[in-house]
Formats: sequence, structure tokens, C-alpha cells
Amino acid sequence: MKALALGKVYQLLEPGPVVLLTTARGGRANVMTMSWHMMLEFEPPLIACVCSGANYSFEALRATGECVIAIPARKLTAKVVKVGNSTGRDTDKFKAFKLTPVAAGQVQAPLIKECFANIECKVVDRAMVNRYNMFILEGVQAWIDPKQKNPKTIHHHGYGKFAVDGATITLKSAKA
Amino acid sequence: MKALALGKVYQLLEPGPVVLLTTARGGRANVMTMSWHMMLEFEPPLIACVCSGANYSFEALRATGECVIAIPARKLTAKVVKVGNSTGRDTDKFKAFKLTPVAAGQVQAPLIKECFANIECKVVDRAMVNRYNMFILEGVQAWIDPKQKNPKTIHHHGYGKFAVDGATITLKSAKA
Repeated sequence: MKALALGKVYQLLEPGPVVLLTTARGGRANVMTMSWHMMLEFEPPLIACVCSGANYSFEALRATGECVIAIPARKLTAKVVKVGNSTGRDTDKFKAFKLTPVAAGQVQAPLIKECFANIECKVVDRAMVNRYNMFILEGVQAWIDPKQKNPKTIHHHGYGKFAVDGATITLKSAKA
Repeated sequence: MKALALGKVYQLLEPGPVVLLTTARGGRANVMTMSWHMMLEFEPPLIACVCSGANYSFEALRATGECVIAIPARKLTAKVVKVGNSTGRDTDKFKAFKLTPVAAGQVQAPLIKECFANIECKVVDRAMVNRYNMFILEGVQAWIDPKQKNPKTIHHHGYGKFAVDGATITLKSAKA
């Protein structure tokens, strides 16, 4: 994986892809599927996300204050759904779904080798955790896999229905 | 336009489409382009969004506590970029870009006729406005245009580059 400038992280998350969120607690890694996230600031990248208190990852995220947001391309769709339909309480999802954890640089949570981008994050604001299960993350290091060219991300419409990125349109814009 | 159950609003926003946000203040309507939004709760639908203090819409949203999130399909991409590259300070964007305002049911901000979905929203939490320009909205009424079949939304990758929805994948999911 190759380092990605933190100022470019918004280009990955702003389009609303389904992502995987990894955590690690007590030496045990876990991964969940997440679609409720948004950018809050360009650089350093601030990201808001909702991790339901019903998710096993919630306690790990709250306790450790660290996670990785890993972005899967289309070919991982079936695994993304399996990750979303299972729980780390009784399953080692990395092993069960053949996802490869890779040591991150600045957080204990692992990168996912099969994802085309990985963003190491630290929780920087917990003010909205109790009210909305909303965490504010700062992206502290980002990685892309240069071998995955033009990855097509997936976008969740509910109940296992996804739209895959199709055509690209580029128009002149004065702004980011 | 046809009423949409509020419990289905998340299916529109969770996939991360670029949206238009309308406001109305002192009888004057305005519209901006927005990509930084996420779902917070299914029903009633709670939506977090970032409206930069640099945007003319920011003051209208803060003062009135009302807006409409209108979702454009692919054919409106050029207008979406024009809306994003101009400001309501000196431009009546509805007139300039031939967008048709339609009276909403519960808010002063207008619906946009050309959009395939419109969500009337009220600001319900301002605790994060000062720190992140983040507003928490509740969707109070939603509309879809049944004449626009299978609308393809657009997803912003920065600097006027958009991915358009392509193929649809449906897999068995145990969850929403």
C-alpha cells in the first residue's frame, strides 16, 4: 500500500461509499460494515460516523478511541454483506470471510489488505456519542493500493441493495 | 410529487448522493449544493449535514431552522455544478439555472420540481453548529416523483468529478 496525502481523503469518503470499520481491543481485531459517515473538514480530515451501540464494535471504538476506515471495491460486495450480517461477539470475521489484517502505522486497529484505501483514524470528539452514537474521527494516516486501478465503490440503498459506481462525469468546478 | 414514508428516507441519503439544499428567508429562496451529509436515525429520519459558514445558505438555515434536501438525478449534473459554483448573495439561482421552486407542506423552503426526491427538514439540534458547521435535521415530510423511474444519482469525488450510479447488486441482507 502507498501513502495518500491526508488532504485527499475527502475524495474517498465524500461520494458515500459503503466502508468497513476495523477496531482492535485486547489484541482482538474486529470489523463492521458502515454507511453512515460524512466528511466534516478537509485537512486534517475530520470524519463523523455513526456506530450503533448495538454493534460489538461500538465498545471497542469507545474504549480504544482508534479505528481504520477501509474502503472496499465492487469485488468485495459479498464479503461486505457477510461482515454486516454477523457479529464479532461470536465470530472472527477476518478469518471467517478471508479478509487480511495488516498492521497500521499509528493505530492498533488493522488495515484491510483487500480494500483499495485505508484511513487510520483517532476519535477526537465524543460529545455526540451518547446522544446519536456519533463519533468524530481525525484521519491521521491514509493508504491506497496502487494495484487497484479505478476502483468502483458500492453505495447501500437498504436491505442488501447496492448501486455500483458507473460512468464518470467531469465538469469544470471552481471549488473542491 | 407523491408522498414517501419517512421510514424510507434513509434509502435515499445513505448511498451518499450529491444533494441540493434549499432555504427561504424573508421571502427569498436560495439553493446550494451539498455532499457532506449522513443519516443519524431511521425514523423519524435524522440527518446530519455540514453547511459551511462561508455559504450564503448558512445564515438562512441558522435563522429559519428549515430547509429542503432535494436529490437530483444524473440529468441535472450540469445545474448542480452551476449551483455549487455560484452564490445566492448576488444570484437568484432558481431563475438563473431554470430550477422550479414548489411550495412545501411544512417548511418555508421550497421543493425543487426537477429533483426526483425532496425531503422537508427542520433543524432539531444546533449543538455542533459553532464547532463544525454541523446541523442535525429531522425529515418531517418526504416526496418522490413517480415519473422519474430508477433515477441515477451522482457522487462527488472533488473538483467537479462525479461517479454516476451504475449497475445494481442485490444480496440477501439480514439488516436494513
